[in-house]
Amino acid sequence: MINNFFENRKSVKQVEESTELAPKFENNGLIPVVTTDFKSGEVLMQGYMNEEAFIQTIKLGEAVYYSRSRKSLWHKGKTSGFKQIIKEIRIDDDQDSIWLRVNVRGGASCHVGYRSCFYRSIPIGNSIDKSKIILEFKEKKKVFDPKEIYGNETSPTKL
Amino acid sequence: MINNFFENRKSVKQVEESTELAPKFENNGLIPVVTTDFKSGEVLMQGYMNEEAFIQTIKLGEAVYYSRSRKSLWHKGKTSGFKQIIKEIRIDDDQDSIWLRVNVRGGASCHVGYRSCFYRSIPIGNSIDKSKIILEFKEKKKVFDPKEIYGNETSPTKL
Repeated sequence: MINNFFENRKSVKQVEESTELAPKFENNGLIPVVTTDFKSGEVLMQGYMNEEAFIQTIKLGEAVYYSRSRKSLWHKGKTSGFKQIIKEIRIDDDQDSIWLRVNVRGGASCHVGYRSCFYRSIPIGNSIDKSKIILEFKEKKKVFDPKEIYGNETSPTKL
Repeated sequence: MINNFFENRKSVKQVEESTELAPKFENNGLIPVVTTDFKSGEVLMQGYMNEEAFIQTIKLGEAVYYSRSRKSLWHKGKTSGFKQIIKEIRIDDDQDSIWLRVNVRGGASCHVGYRSCFYRSIPIGNSIDKSKIILEFKEKKKVFDPKEIYGNETSPTKL
């Protein structure tokens, strides 16, 4: 563990019922993170942190993720200006998932230009087959133009 | 792909900007899922689905996860009764993360007995060091007694 910042995981009781922070990082060294808008409750994005990103996030009060595509720490908003100011950090029962509640400077979180990364919904139902799956855009308009913000930077999306 | 239910991932544009469902499952065959309460917006849990779980969830309108600890499909609430009735399914920009908005029969989602799995918060600040990290319980009371619901079943929490 870096700087012994976290507690060792000793028992199920300690992890689930105590006030000790003993997060579990997967074999790849990462823990998944859910980020929601503090006011609307909307899920903005889902990302990952390594130990260093998690420590920096706690100390800084701004979201620092680990970018799997760039393989480096990612202080969200450093390029775009859309920093995520943390109002609350929560951790789940078995301490292998983090929930950030944030205010976003500029109001947008998605590199495609939308407020939330989750701008499309999937239809539900017994009779659904592939031909009937047409994603619905829940955000009708982009909040910003990605080209203005990122220029010709390559999309982080991997196929 | 099972039953060719999903589209193949052909281009960044298709994945980010089209109405085609072309989800990305990691090398372990799983996609992360965030589940929030439809009314309160509270994050209830973070889980995973494999292809089969995702297809069942879409068709059934109830959350079916893949349990990594049990290595099998997990129709949430089948044991506890706390089924998650899906109001909306969203997918993110690069289609490697799912957001479920649900109503929970019985009102609880966490095997420890709380409403949300994220019942503890982490303090934030520059001067925070390990000795000052004391998790705060944001839910003061359990919604149910795990022993009554699960009996002597082993906790799914892994150290």
